[in-house]
Amino acid sequence: MPPHPSMGAGRACNGPSKMTTRKAQLIDSRFHPLMKRIQRLHLRQERERSGLFYIEGLRFVAMALQHHMPVETLVVCPSLLDHPYAQKMIRTQRRLGTPILEVTAGVMHSITLVDDPQGIGAIVRQRWKPLERIKPGAELCWLALQIIRSPGNLGTILRTCDCVGAAGLILLGDEIDPYDPATVRATMGAMFTQSFVRTSLEKFIQWKRRYTIPLVGTSPSAPVDYQAVNYQKPTILLMGEERKGLPPDLQNICDLMVNIPMVGESDSLNLGIATGVMLYELFNQGRRATPL
Amino acid sequence: MPPHPSMGAGRACNGPSKMTTRKAQLIDSRFHPLMKRIQRLHLRQERERSGLFYIEGLRFVAMALQHHMPVETLVVCPSLLDHPYAQKMIRTQRRLGTPILEVTAGVMHSITLVDDPQGIGAIVRQRWKPLERIKPGAELCWLALQIIRSPGNLGTILRTCDCVGAAGLILLGDEIDPYDPATVRATMGAMFTQSFVRTSLEKFIQWKRRYTIPLVGTSPSAPVDYQAVNYQKPTILLMGEERKGLPPDLQNICDLMVNIPMVGESDSLNLGIATGVMLYELFNQGRRATPL
Repeated sequence: MPPHPSMGAGRACNGPSKMTTRKAQLIDSRFHPLMKRIQRLHLRQERERSGLFYIEGLRFVAMALQHHMPVETLVVCPSLLDHPYAQKMIRTQRRLGTPILEVTAGVMHSITLVDDPQGIGAIVRQRWKPLERIKPGAELCWLALQIIRSPGNLGTILRTCDCVGAAGLILLGDEIDPYDPATVRATMGAMFTQSFVRTSLEKFIQWKRRYTIPLVGTSPSAPVDYQAVNYQKPTILLMGEERKGLPPDLQNICDLMVNIPMVGESDSLNLGIATGVMLYELFNQGRRATPL
Repeated sequence: MPPHPSMGAGRACNGPSKMTTRKAQLIDSRFHPLMKRIQRLHLRQERERSGLFYIEGLRFVAMALQHHMPVETLVVCPSLLDHPYAQKMIRTQRRLGTPILEVTAGVMHSITLVDDPQGIGAIVRQRWKPLERIKPGAELCWLALQIIRSPGNLGTILRTCDCVGAAGLILLGDEIDPYDPATVRATMGAMFTQSFVRTSLEKFIQWKRRYTIPLVGTSPSAPVDYQAVNYQKPTILLMGEERKGLPPDLQNICDLMVNIPMVGESDSLNLGIATGVMLYELFNQGRRATPL
């Protein structure tokens, strides 16, 4: 069987395909090559090879479409999906020429990572922004990360980034995959408002110097209280990984290191909480500067 | 075999026992009744029946001892534990008469919930404070919860409570078990600085009225900005569960409902983040009021 056009490496969804103008075929085998390829998208290696990722649930699919994410194929299980909004969304996508695969409930369960799939998923092309195309403007901030241990933590952090109106995520090096299913799920769909950039440490340093954007890192031993700083727009917030925080080489490239005061016995805050507290400080300063 | 004194329902560790004055027996079977009882402590039912819980790792055990938690038995695997600090701690506990069980590495792996056990654990009696014994003073705040879905979330929240110097956790009803292993682990040991109270909604309302302590809840639709309030000491912060937030009956008992502003597309912040942002607002107001 030839591969489905949407599963190739290139963009396939440029107009109505034959698939969408006739009655969709119902896939009833979890061993169908397309289903096996979706299952493989749960693995980072396959996501990198294909440049795709898979999202599940009405909320996620709706938000991806709303943010003009390049949805390559919708995967629909008619018997699981009776929400009128979903029906309407699928009709619209069919009209727009988005390939739609119909699958049985059993097949849907075989490709899902959730206990109770809603009957809709989508194969989506990853969206990356090249660093050199980003010209900092009036945005609140960017979040830069090199390592994070928990994909769920990253998802929670992206959700907070969305809540404060951050511009996006700058990933230093190849460690982090923001399209990990656990990350995607924890964002609750908020990831689609955020730009993703991957770059090297060297290029990142050149870029921030060129635009003189302040880079702020956190450490419990930093001398400056995080609330004693007037953060300019945009600021880049650089956060370390869960256990060890920012390593010395990353602390050294920061223009300012700040601490979030603590009075208890913990050595540190949870990474998601520390990032949330920092992002809300930037956000609150921005709100005070430009009251509605 | 008679049950080990430390595993009964009552307090057993009131002085040196025979176990500790002679060379400890090395337990080499995971089917040993004491090991099976420790494994059962991973289940809530057994924790409730016995009033005990199990902690693992040097950091946790050291913090529990430091905070005078009623440690009933130390579980030690000599071949896994070579840290000098651990050796010293065990010698001290042996001298104080704390029962010590020595186990093989295989047995340690059979009772652990972590991948790489450090060779020390402890059976600890749960510590609860009766609400009627709490006379609010100059403490920053209490956190009240009725339902939380993720035990890990609760642990992260308790860690934040410790960081800001909160007094503790007031649990409304029977839903939440703060001694769940996933909660304990996520606190990173910070839970021992926090008092735990379990009470009914009715008694809680009576108590807060009696002492006129303000109860503040959060909701994205609340009219008051969380930063527009002067929080008094102590304040009780009431947080809802992850998906639905505070139900109407809990919103109704609040003296004030506040919102944490958001500009993105998310309906809400992650519960841990929202609690962290609220706790840091209380903490920061307290820091400003009493500068060092």
